[in-house]
Amino acid sequence: MAAKAQDRKVIFRPHFKTHQSSVIGEWFMAEGVSAITVSSVSMAHYFVKFEWKDITIAFPVNLLEIDEINELAAEINLNLLVESVEVAEFLTGNLTSDCGFFIKIDTGYHRTGIDASNVALIDRILEVTKSSKLHFKGFLTHSGQSYHSKDRSELLHIQKSASESLQRLKKDYQYEYPDLIISVGDTPGCSQLPISEGINEIRPGNFVFFDVMQFALGSCTLEEIAVALICPVVAIHPNRMEAVIYGGAVHLSKEHTLLSPDPDPVYGLAFNWDGKNWDTGNLLGKVSSLSQEHGIISLTQAGCNLKPGDLVAILPVHSCLTASLMRQYYDMNGEVIETMNS
Amino acid sequence: MAAKAQDRKVIFRPHFKTHQSSVIGEWFMAEGVSAITVSSVSMAHYFVKFEWKDITIAFPVNLLEIDEINELAAEINLNLLVESVEVAEFLTGNLTSDCGFFIKIDTGYHRTGIDASNVALIDRILEVTKSSKLHFKGFLTHSGQSYHSKDRSELLHIQKSASESLQRLKKDYQYEYPDLIISVGDTPGCSQLPISEGINEIRPGNFVFFDVMQFALGSCTLEEIAVALICPVVAIHPNRMEAVIYGGAVHLSKEHTLLSPDPDPVYGLAFNWDGKNWDTGNLLGKVSSLSQEHGIISLTQAGCNLKPGDLVAILPVHSCLTASLMRQYYDMNGEVIETMNS
Repeated sequence: MAAKAQDRKVIFRPHFKTHQSSVIGEWFMAEGVSAITVSSVSMAHYFVKFEWKDITIAFPVNLLEIDEINELAAEINLNLLVESVEVAEFLTGNLTSDCGFFIKIDTGYHRTGIDASNVALIDRILEVTKSSKLHFKGFLTHSGQSYHSKDRSELLHIQKSASESLQRLKKDYQYEYPDLIISVGDTPGCSQLPISEGINEIRPGNFVFFDVMQFALGSCTLEEIAVALICPVVAIHPNRMEAVIYGGAVHLSKEHTLLSPDPDPVYGLAFNWDGKNWDTGNLLGKVSSLSQEHGIISLTQAGCNLKPGDLVAILPVHSCLTASLMRQYYDMNGEVIETMNS
Repeated sequence: MAAKAQDRKVIFRPHFKTHQSSVIGEWFMAEGVSAITVSSVSMAHYFVKFEWKDITIAFPVNLLEIDEINELAAEINLNLLVESVEVAEFLTGNLTSDCGFFIKIDTGYHRTGIDASNVALIDRILEVTKSSKLHFKGFLTHSGQSYHSKDRSELLHIQKSASESLQRLKKDYQYEYPDLIISVGDTPGCSQLPISEGINEIRPGNFVFFDVMQFALGSCTLEEIAVALICPVVAIHPNRMEAVIYGGAVHLSKEHTLLSPDPDPVYGLAFNWDGKNWDTGNLLGKVSSLSQEHGIISLTQAGCNLKPGDLVAILPVHSCLTASLMRQYYDMNGEVIETMNS
């Protein structure tokens, strides 16, 4: 991903919410990354402790955290997201240090952001923030609807349409703001497609691990999924070809996906674990349901040899959520990799 | 629940996985509770530190935790669940102190347990454990299928059918084991229905807080839900009557339920929060979608007055999962209530 960004001369500002780990952050530093994205003020504070000095908090500003935001803005290059006049006014009135901001544009995900055609609102925000400590950096979007795309052509359509909206904005505003940045971010788009013309920054995060959802979307192969949850088998039900694992919603999260042609939701894929590595050539089953601490694996023929006390490797559906729940990792040598939640 | 158990002279062994807190445990002690249920070996260890001396781990034994199990068995009255000959043999060979066990019976949930008609397997387990440190205490079930019941008559049917299976087993085995206990446990059954004839122990847990799922099932009123997640509003989208909160899958969990007649999944209900209390008379909206840190509230008319920086109280769909994710509580005076994950 670093090479792809460098090739197109765009800023690579990876999202660190996926791993939330200072150690994994160092791997990015080794690739020349110096700017990052996080999803909360507390996550920004954590990475500041580890020498990160250029951080975008890609989440609508929580006004109740203004004191913590001021602490950060005094110390590093901080960027916030703004999508309303009220928040812009609050920040211009309450920021005590210079701070960048992106205007969040909704390019079809409809979670947050301003419609790209709402130039009146964009103008009011730029008016309110003029000559304040809040400095306009550009337009930012997250095309999260890419997670619902059925195939590459739909993904391409989503990216193209978002890109066109952002280009129009750039054209309208770059005379007044010649350095404005167009920032995009979803892993399916960034991993499967070339970077569109006119994009200045990419912010993917999930690609650091990938997961079964990205596999289902075509963003990665099974072999490229870089994180697994190792779970003990606690019961076997041969008559219905099921294993019960100690690994439930509090470990994996209840995120699920569909793996065509199977019509049933999948909460993870179970592979053989030899104590050192998992083997994606040896599918033992699909996690077909989860309660608080239990997971049920619908076994393949290969899985029917499992017995209580065996360990299996579960590739998670959404690695960001599983990693956040488990709070720390072990590397392939068994060494602990700490995170902000360790 | 304590009064209901006392009235029918059954053992009240509440499940502590819902709250996971020593402080809330004390509230149960004050009601005369001395025996509890937990869902993991680590949870048992936590409660042992707070003077609990009679604990059932209502989860299939994880053989890899035999050392921790032996520590517990040496110190307290510990009960395990057994559902296979392999696990029974492993325990008889490896337990270093006396320990009770329940045979887990599957009364229709099909998650774990032995079919009640599989007397041959039950006999083999009893045979294997005879004259060992593993002492048969009785038959235990969790009718989790009650969470899928459409109405009270279906719930009644589930309870009746489970109860009949367990009664048959009791009749078959009580000559040889006159003190055998029949233990049941789901909150919908325990809160909505009278305790069936012949039941000796109840193990509900969720009722300590209840939640929106229990409300949807008819187990409680909205006013009886005793836990809420207080979330800041970070953005408002008046054109689609939506608010964005800082409160996502890592806070609430992705558990959802349906609230008839609304056909769409609900991840929580948002109510007015005045800084001290929430007001279930004032519904601000339904949490209609969740990503990692974002929640989207579909607003009612009353909710349309919200603005960024306001706090709302979200009643969770599954209080066990939300409580586990948030790791601690505040009481109504703002005092911290710690848990095993604090």
